[in-house]
Amino acid sequence: MCAERSYARSISLPPDEVFRNLRNAKRFAMDIGGSLAKLAYYSTVERSRAYVSASSGGDDGDGQDDHHLYEIQEQNELGARIHFVKFEMTYFEKCLDFIKENLVSSHGEMMGKVVKATGGGSHKYTNLIRDKLGLDCDKEDEMQCLIEGCIFVLRNITNEAFEYQRHSPQPYKFQTMDADIFPFLLVNIGSGVSIVKVESHDKYERIGGSSIGGGSFLGLGCKLTKAKNFDELLQLASQGDHRNVDMLVRDIYGGAYSALGLPGELIASSFGKMVSAKDGQEFEEQDIAKSLLHTISNDIGQIACLYAQLHGLRKIYFGGFFIRGHPVTMHTITYAINFWSRGTLQALFLRHEGYLGAIGAFLKGAEEDDSEKYCWGENYAGSSGLHSTSPPPDFIPRDRTASFDRFELDRLERPLVSLPALLDPPSYFPDTVDLTEDPDARKYWLDCFEEALGKVAARAVASQPSRDDAEMRAQQFMAKYNKRLETLREHPFAYGSLTVRSLLDTREQCLNEFHFADPYQHIKQQENEAALRILPERLQHLDSLEFRERQVALAEGLLAGNVFDWGAKAITRLMEGDDSFGFEEAMSKLQARPWLVDDLDPWLERLQDHPHKCALIFADNSGLDIILGVFPFAREMVLRGTQVILCANSKPALNDVTYGELKILAKKVAELCPTISRIDEMLSQECQRRGVDLVVLEGMGRAIHTNYHAAFSCESLKLAVLKNKWLANRLGGDVFSVIFKYTKGSK
Amino acid sequence: MCAERSYARSISLPPDEVFRNLRNAKRFAMDIGGSLAKLAYYSTVERSRAYVSASSGGDDGDGQDDHHLYEIQEQNELGARIHFVKFEMTYFEKCLDFIKENLVSSHGEMMGKVVKATGGGSHKYTNLIRDKLGLDCDKEDEMQCLIEGCIFVLRNITNEAFEYQRHSPQPYKFQTMDADIFPFLLVNIGSGVSIVKVESHDKYERIGGSSIGGGSFLGLGCKLTKAKNFDELLQLASQGDHRNVDMLVRDIYGGAYSALGLPGELIASSFGKMVSAKDGQEFEEQDIAKSLLHTISNDIGQIACLYAQLHGLRKIYFGGFFIRGHPVTMHTITYAINFWSRGTLQALFLRHEGYLGAIGAFLKGAEEDDSEKYCWGENYAGSSGLHSTSPPPDFIPRDRTASFDRFELDRLERPLVSLPALLDPPSYFPDTVDLTEDPDARKYWLDCFEEALGKVAARAVASQPSRDDAEMRAQQFMAKYNKRLETLREHPFAYGSLTVRSLLDTREQCLNEFHFADPYQHIKQQENEAALRILPERLQHLDSLEFRERQVALAEGLLAGNVFDWGAKAITRLMEGDDSFGFEEAMSKLQARPWLVDDLDPWLERLQDHPHKCALIFADNSGLDIILGVFPFAREMVLRGTQVILCANSKPALNDVTYGELKILAKKVAELCPTISRIDEMLSQECQRRGVDLVVLEGMGRAIHTNYHAAFSCESLKLAVLKNKWLANRLGGDVFSVIFKYTKGSK
Repeated sequence: MCAERSYARSISLPPDEVFRNLRNAKRFAMDIGGSLAKLAYYSTVERSRAYVSASSGGDDGDGQDDHHLYEIQEQNELGARIHFVKFEMTYFEKCLDFIKENLVSSHGEMMGKVVKATGGGSHKYTNLIRDKLGLDCDKEDEMQCLIEGCIFVLRNITNEAFEYQRHSPQPYKFQTMDADIFPFLLVNIGSGVSIVKVESHDKYERIGGSSIGGGSFLGLGCKLTKAKNFDELLQLASQGDHRNVDMLVRDIYGGAYSALGLPGELIASSFGKMVSAKDGQEFEEQDIAKSLLHTISNDIGQIACLYAQLHGLRKIYFGGFFIRGHPVTMHTITYAINFWSRGTLQALFLRHEGYLGAIGAFLKGAEEDDSEKYCWGENYAGSSGLHSTSPPPDFIPRDRTASFDRFELDRLERPLVSLPALLDPPSYFPDTVDLTEDPDARKYWLDCFEEALGKVAARAVASQPSRDDAEMRAQQFMAKYNKRLETLREHPFAYGSLTVRSLLDTREQCLNEFHFADPYQHIKQQENEAALRILPERLQHLDSLEFRERQVALAEGLLAGNVFDWGAKAITRLMEGDDSFGFEEAMSKLQARPWLVDDLDPWLERLQDHPHKCALIFADNSGLDIILGVFPFAREMVLRGTQVILCANSKPALNDVTYGELKILAKKVAELCPTISRIDEMLSQECQRRGVDLVVLEGMGRAIHTNYHAAFSCESLKLAVLKNKWLANRLGGDVFSVIFKYTKGSK
Repeated sequence: MCAERSYARSISLPPDEVFRNLRNAKRFAMDIGGSLAKLAYYSTVERSRAYVSASSGGDDGDGQDDHHLYEIQEQNELGARIHFVKFEMTYFEKCLDFIKENLVSSHGEMMGKVVKATGGGSHKYTNLIRDKLGLDCDKEDEMQCLIEGCIFVLRNITNEAFEYQRHSPQPYKFQTMDADIFPFLLVNIGSGVSIVKVESHDKYERIGGSSIGGGSFLGLGCKLTKAKNFDELLQLASQGDHRNVDMLVRDIYGGAYSALGLPGELIASSFGKMVSAKDGQEFEEQDIAKSLLHTISNDIGQIACLYAQLHGLRKIYFGGFFIRGHPVTMHTITYAINFWSRGTLQALFLRHEGYLGAIGAFLKGAEEDDSEKYCWGENYAGSSGLHSTSPPPDFIPRDRTASFDRFELDRLERPLVSLPALLDPPSYFPDTVDLTEDPDARKYWLDCFEEALGKVAARAVASQPSRDDAEMRAQQFMAKYNKRLETLREHPFAYGSLTVRSLLDTREQCLNEFHFADPYQHIKQQENEAALRILPERLQHLDSLEFRERQVALAEGLLAGNVFDWGAKAITRLMEGDDSFGFEEAMSKLQARPWLVDDLDPWLERLQDHPHKCALIFADNSGLDIILGVFPFAREMVLRGTQVILCANSKPALNDVTYGELKILAKKVAELCPTISRIDEMLSQECQRRGVDLVVLEGMGRAIHTNYHAAFSCESLKLAVLKNKWLANRLGGDVFSVIFKYTKGSK
């Protein structure tokens, strides 16, 4: 394919993929650099959402069989989304044309609005933007935008920052989100380098910089090699061996210079070997490119490290177009920081470093609209991920399509905060297995999710019987998610730490993208209704037991209830094969004691003691789990004099009980369970007010895939039935092995 | 002249000039770098020295007319000298051959001795040195030698360190020698850069470094331009304009980036302009070379500055072959240090930075011989000076001769220490006018010294009537000193601050070089004898006066005595024209009161008060000055109950009274003057022991050319008669204007 055809094709791409939702765009911002432009726009997207509401006819609980416990409805609602698109400046004008055609024609309401522009190129293109879009253009301070953007991603995006350890099996070490982000050093490597100390939103200072940056790399590189652009130069560099042009310590001293602690392999003089061989000897272009990349990365790393030490800063984030997620660059900078700080500092990179300026400019424009008050989450379905920014291994410079990199943010309903009972929020890493670090586990789970895809799609279609396009959308969903799984097999680090949780989240986002609000809604409804019917009998049985016997039965009930999980392959098979599979059958499947993790005795002993003040119970599945497992357990706690806060997801995830459903169920079992709260922004204050001294985490998702190692300041009970053979084997058990982990608080 | 002929000529040069005193060489050391070699050798030189001894026949003072007061003798004595020669590695083998021919043949005593070698190239050439010289070769640690060398020059060489301020009329700001040299940062820029924190002789640490150094400059520079070597590249650089290849802040932002305080002229991205102009546009070689020099100097400056700040160091010395005294390099480093430290730090360079390693290696070899205990002084006559290390303005790369740069050190008889009465020794700058900073004064004094040269030479010949070769040596002296004056007209900074004192010192060293020990010895002898004869009469007169009258007469006597100065043109003319010019005539020449500076009244008032405890009197000229001026004044102090320490030069300088002469004279006037000590290493303790509370500085040399602004912790009296019309006019007076400056102590 010739270059022209490839360019032509890439320019015809944007409408559908790159600039989706452009029609609904309400606000624009741009970061115009020397070689790349980043466009940000805010738009609304229609999303299908499942609602449950107490049935009007059945709210006095008269047990009518043909009447549902609650009604299920799907409604379209408008969600807010910010789209970021990054592309080469070559396409800037064409992109403006495209925007004009697709936006201004249909959108009168943009008239009179202002485009926020930042970046070194912004002053050159102000007129062009005005002319093309007919919108006014405000220039925003570049550094301020950059810093705002940086603060934003650190605060909002999970696993935004990472360390890069090239020679580790998993080079990307993602950082947990930390509310306490200040102070930090931001090293922005564009044409030159700016080093900024950021102490807060308002307080930052450019404490240093360097003129040796990306411009020097490209300027010198293009003069010294045949490379024509940044990517070609990087590609050359990645094939080179700097030792052919750099003078190493051993080239001078024959080995290490031990008296000064300088190893023989250390570069003594960059390009030093090119000195002695003027006559005739030619040096390989790739070696020169590699040395140049080394020299510049190393220099920036050293200077950054010195500024960090001078200002007593522990966190150094590197951004700017020079980085581009390029492994050699990140490696050299990491190496330099490590070398010069003697291991006391670590270089941190950002997954969305290329978007910082655009994000900042966008936020500037959004200030008037209070958008800043919202929390935003990365939409995995609509974002390109980290891999697309570095040249692929089979990179052929002249035959590539233009790259349009995307990043999308969805507005969250409420801000997320840390649970106060967590012992050390900054070090809290929810996921038990990081699939980015464990190739076996990764393969297993990616296979799992791939296999399950057909059934999930079928379930989604079944959940919307009245909608003709459900089948088509389900196909689109499958195609999209399958592609994402492929991407993740190749670039597991593309969206931060790859975990079972992130795979589930991404699947929900993809379902949502194709307007499947809650594929399991009808099943959950049926299960809840069935379970409610046998609850009185279960409670009667429990009440007939002695204290100790009852506590054991309640614990077993929690576990038996937890067997019912449509997410678990083994159970799905069981449940699908036998419609009458019930609570007793589940009880009989449970591993006999001693369980795989068996803290039942200390737990029973604890129960002999004073009642807990307040228990926070995170529920898992709908149906038997919540109703026969969790509610009786909660009721016992309440009867002991413990306040109980029941927590559920706000959004659907498989057959997990949602907040909406839980509210209706709780009302139904109101006589058993007096106190129910929500897992939302209020929870944090609620926990503090009531003095939570017990956290109960139930289910594979909450207690095994995540939180298994989470430390709480109060007592905690983590329980689940292992319904996945592979995972059970990994943990030394088998299917239906029981985890009952009781831990005293570490406060 | 073609290159070959020029090389051939330069190789025939060494014997006479460069490797002088090689025959007497006793010890060798070498610093072998990548491109330059530095050879150090220790040798003895024969020097003619004048001695005076009390006459055997006249020691009972019977006043015999044909008998001299003291006998004058000249003796040859051996002085110790260290020679350093710097030359290009190209000549290394030829130089070794030359050394072998001229040394080993004549000097059996070198056999079995060891050559100390250091520098990156030392391990490559060990065998060659062994083979050629037949001497064993010890490798010495490079960094240690460098640091030892640095400490040595800072401790021993006047005006060794300097700041470089390119756009100042006098770019070289030399530092006063300071005994308190630690801690400091040494930034050595060879192929790479080493940054060493030096806290003492034994305690130093390489705290950092950079691979971007001289090797990178040369390696990249030769690849990017047609330059073949360092000097060609520097030459190119000095013709270039970096703004044609560097992207400035204004190139991006259209002007300054005020919000961040970045001026428009600041380099945003080195070589950044070479990015956008790949197609066709060519960049000028000199602009690229200039930008490269800027980039590297600036980078090193910044890194050095950061290390200095991190370690709280105030002094940063830059050395290594990259510097080479090249103005653009020094300017950029200075600029970077100033910029990055926001003016709180200053880059310091060393006049002999190229010799540090060789000096250190030499000292290593000298440790056994206790040479370190001695003090060494720069021999201006035998050193090349600073100018020779940078390419001259009319530099034509291919047509230059090989440069052999030289540096010579003479062993001093005793270490020099600061006078305890000095208020702030580190800030003591002895010289009143820095001729490097004052073009008018410089021209005047260089003219003066040039004019006087014939008379000085004639006086020198006359002082050695019995030696046939005196005339020839005087011609050689004249040629040498004249050449030096020429050099100083062009490069006034070549040997540190140019002052009247340094011009006198250099003249004495040149006279000495050609075996003229003390050209004025006979004149001084005659004058002393004549003055002694009229002393009793003078004392009688003084004793007849009332207290106040007597004090005035003593002060006037000091001043009248000070009229007799063979160094002053006006006086020389008077004295030469009229043999009978005597004390009374001198008294009559004095300016009438009020004097130009007239503190006589406060001084008289002070004398009403309690006597001083101890007075330190620095005497000036022989004859009437010391005998009729100083001795009566000292006698009066003693009679008042003050202890007196009389100080004189240890070596001849014009008609100044020397220590040897003063001892004999003092003995002659012993009845008047009970206490005489020496200005030598004992003086310091002596002053402290006795509690000096008055310092008297007499004469143009001591009180005007130097020390005029010196602050003492005790009282001081600075007095002189201005015998130089130009200087007198400068100070607002005329010939014979009187300076009588009395200052209370500032303790």
